[in-house]
Amino acid sequence: MISVLLVGKGNVATHLYDAFLNVDAVKVTQISSRELDKIPQADVTIIAVSDDAITEVSSKITNNFVVHTSGSVSINDLKNNTRKGVFYMLQTFSKDKNVDFSKVPFCLESESKEDYKLLETLAKSIGKKIYSINSEQRKTLHVAAVFVNNFTNHMYKIGNDICIENNVPFEILQPLIKETASKIEYLSPEKAQTGPAVRNDKRTIKNHLNLLDINQQEIYKILTKSIQNGN
Amino acid sequence: MISVLLVGKGNVATHLYDAFLNVDAVKVTQISSRELDKIPQADVTIIAVSDDAITEVSSKITNNFVVHTSGSVSINDLKNNTRKGVFYMLQTFSKDKNVDFSKVPFCLESESKEDYKLLETLAKSIGKKIYSINSEQRKTLHVAAVFVNNFTNHMYKIGNDICIENNVPFEILQPLIKETASKIEYLSPEKAQTGPAVRNDKRTIKNHLNLLDINQQEIYKILTKSIQNGN
Repeated sequence: MISVLLVGKGNVATHLYDAFLNVDAVKVTQISSRELDKIPQADVTIIAVSDDAITEVSSKITNNFVVHTSGSVSINDLKNNTRKGVFYMLQTFSKDKNVDFSKVPFCLESESKEDYKLLETLAKSIGKKIYSINSEQRKTLHVAAVFVNNFTNHMYKIGNDICIENNVPFEILQPLIKETASKIEYLSPEKAQTGPAVRNDKRTIKNHLNLLDINQQEIYKILTKSIQNGN
Repeated sequence: MISVLLVGKGNVATHLYDAFLNVDAVKVTQISSRELDKIPQADVTIIAVSDDAITEVSSKITNNFVVHTSGSVSINDLKNNTRKGVFYMLQTFSKDKNVDFSKVPFCLESESKEDYKLLETLAKSIGKKIYSINSEQRKTLHVAAVFVNNFTNHMYKIGNDICIENNVPFEILQPLIKETASKIEYLSPEKAQTGPAVRNDKRTIKNHLNLLDINQQEIYKILTKSIQNGN
């Protein structure tokens, strides 16, 4: 039996709490980060609060083994005086949507092999994809995730704006969006690239620019250039 | 029974040919665009050649009803002297991958209601999602598709480059990529936006820029600015 204390009441903490509740081998408790004066002991204390609050919250915790769940915070930013680790799940968590943890990659880090085993056992109790990722590698993943998630979503936003402006249903683009995301499971993104930029189809590029507003044009030009330069 | 002549030997023509072969109510023939001197009659002649060749190929065809399959070419660029139309499928077609036509949006256009009905019957014989889209709307879809497909794929490319450079497996990002694509089926891209740009998390943005090369930095900055401006 592993005892887990979850600190935080946000999406990540709550989804994790719900998942651990279903695991017989885990005993889980959840508290708010405002209740740190008298907290229960636990084998693993998981701080799932906003990035900025991790240092302060961890400095107030005296439990034996404290981990955070952030993609962009180093293990050394934990300021507890006991053992440290990271329990980072690389996925977007929405409040109202169930999480299928079997598909979520768990990126684990700790100071000792024993603690890694403990985190691994915990992750395997709810998940399937477990990776050993140190703080440097996690930083890399986090910035890469900004491109494949945040910036990709902004591409969807611009596509949606263009459709709304011209009275075309955005849903027509949904199958293409899904196919684009699926394609790179068996093809590298470099090989999967199609379109006027990689073909250097100047006439189509010019026609497209004429249809866009000035901000969209700026993005279109810079990304076309980047594709053509092989960046 | 509808007779269809497919002109072209590329991915689109060949996938369409294979699909129509399985439909009892359609009789399909495929020829190369080099064999235009003596071509068979057909109820619908589908020109599936490169955008640049559509005008020339169509000018040599005397069949009664000629359509093209391009997202970026106007119906008026067909130069046959008979009836004209468009049979555009908004999807990426790869040579080696089967196409599930039930998920492909068919964007149809014609000069008369009777011809629209004919194209609709043809599309429904292999597909399910049928849209009436005129040439102006199709131009819109095409440029929107560059953002959600070509530019999104370039975001994947950059994410992949960052991972390779730092020795992190890109596959860790796959579930996030899929979730990002699925999320906008029930949430507008504007509402689905997360990350340091929309939170204006200056510290994380600065840390990220330090991890990137100069081209990646340029793209990171312009997209962050665009997200923050609500463009």
